Amino acid sequence: MTRQELIEQIKEKKSFLCVGLDTDIKKIPEHLLKSDDPVFSFNKEIIDATAPYCVAYKPNLAFYESMGVKGWVAFEKTISYINENYPKHFIIADAKRGDIGNTSAMYARTFFEEMSLDSLTVAPYMGEDSVTPFLQYPGKWVILLALTSNKGSHDFQLSEDKDGERLFEKVLRQSQKWGDKDNMMYVVGATQGKMFEDIRKIVPDHFLLVPGIGAQGGSLEEVCKYGMTKDCGLIVNSSRAIIYADKTERFAEVAGQEAKKVAEQMAVQMNALM
Amino acid sequence: MTRQELIEQIKEKKSFLCVGLDTDIKKIPEHLLKSDDPVFSFNKEIIDATAPYCVAYKPNLAFYESMGVKGWVAFEKTISYINENYPKHFIIADAKRGDIGNTSAMYARTFFEEMSLDSLTVAPYMGEDSVTPFLQYPGKWVILLALTSNKGSHDFQLSEDKDGERLFEKVLRQSQKWGDKDNMMYVVGATQGKMFEDIRKIVPDHFLLVPGIGAQGGSLEEVCKYGMTKDCGLIVNSSRAIIYADKTERFAEVAGQEAKKVAEQMAVQMNALM
Repeated sequence: MTRQELIEQIKEKKSFLCVGLDTDIKKIPEHLLKSDDPVFSFNKEIIDATAPYCVAYKPNLAFYESMGVKGWVAFEKTISYINENYPKHFIIADAKRGDIGNTSAMYARTFFEEMSLDSLTVAPYMGEDSVTPFLQYPGKWVILLALTSNKGSHDFQLSEDKDGERLFEKVLRQSQKWGDKDNMMYVVGATQGKMFEDIRKIVPDHFLLVPGIGAQGGSLEEVCKYGMTKDCGLIVNSSRAIIYADKTERFAEVAGQEAKKVAEQMAVQMNALM
Repeated sequence: MTRQELIEQIKEKKSFLCVGLDTDIKKIPEHLLKSDDPVFSFNKEIIDATAPYCVAYKPNLAFYESMGVKGWVAFEKTISYINENYPKHFIIADAKRGDIGNTSAMYARTFFEEMSLDSLTVAPYMGEDSVTPFLQYPGKWVILLALTSNKGSHDFQLSEDKDGERLFEKVLRQSQKWGDKDNMMYVVGATQGKMFEDIRKIVPDHFLLVPGIGAQGGSLEEVCKYGMTKDCGLIVNSSRAIIYADKTERFAEVAGQEAKKVAEQMAVQMNALM
């Protein structure tokens, strides 16, 4: 998906919501456990219920890999289901990969050629040649970790170099030599509040993928106040607060209602700030 | 596997070789393509031929994931095969994972509980809570990326903070608050030469996992000269130079010979330096 297509989707839907498909077999409604593939059955219903209110889906691979082969099957079926039924939704594999060049090239082949995903989260620690193999596919995106939503983000990401530049700022600045706003986004946690101002000084136009509202406690208003651009420039993810909002047979309906609520808050922000 | 068991294996075999199972279906001998599971068939023969000369195996998950479900099956079969037939070999999942706490906990469950791997490579960018979930399993190890073997290692890992501490040094120092030499190792590329001296100042006793000899050009002699401790303290990996040494039906035999050659060079270093 191109940047322009993404922006159009966001404007049309008045939503920049991404639904995180962090599907844990231990947390899904009991009645689904009887089906052949409970994780896929859950995802399918969640997707059908939330699709009108979101522009993206983000399965976190850890949840699928934790189930071994079965999980990998559920993951592939989920991706196919979205591509076939909701081809305008942007799909993010939350994988946080990053390896030496030839290995990153293998990952790129998997996720972009074989699976038709739109984007992949990548960890920056190993530098340029771990990231650039993912940038060779037109219409595909790298979403590079910059300033994450967790407590441990303070351990290294905030450390300042001799010139006062913090590591996440160096990542934002350096990586612009490898890609541009048409094939690169950045992960910035919603819990980082005013830091969005500093980030927008370095990447004024890039899209930011923002996890951390809902269960992790970040504020949508703050994120929009400091991070929104004239093209929106934000994809805000919510996982647990939507997909596990209800544990009965009505889970999908309630998930849809929760997604709708978030989308309505997003429309307010877009009307005010864009 | 405990640290003491690993040291005993190394001393008994006079080898600290790890064979990297970076098995690429495009590079394995043609006659294997007829078998039901070519990747597993290849691994099985490589393992049988090299087991006497190495103490560890390191499948890089990217190579398996690139094949989707089939690759995941081959990976699981490979791990079971090593555990059943060579239970004293140390198994490293080269996965370079690292995510927020609840997600890292999922990964830990997959790799340590369900798959009986001994260790997992982890990326440090997200800090403490992305690493500690892996440290809760007795006899299991985190192998944290410190100074990698690739060119991009210079982009961020060498950046100096206000006090002159480089990022990889900060990773080494900080992470010692989370684990110790009994459950943590570090990845240091063989291409980093004299840097091993600086690293040993911060982690004098920890084991280092050293990729980058062979195809990537690092020198075994230099690594030993600057990195070896009285307990050896090194696991040196070779992948392509061993597993793809021959492409005929004799591939496994030749791989065994190559592994033996490296092990003999290692014995010389151990006799001289330990």
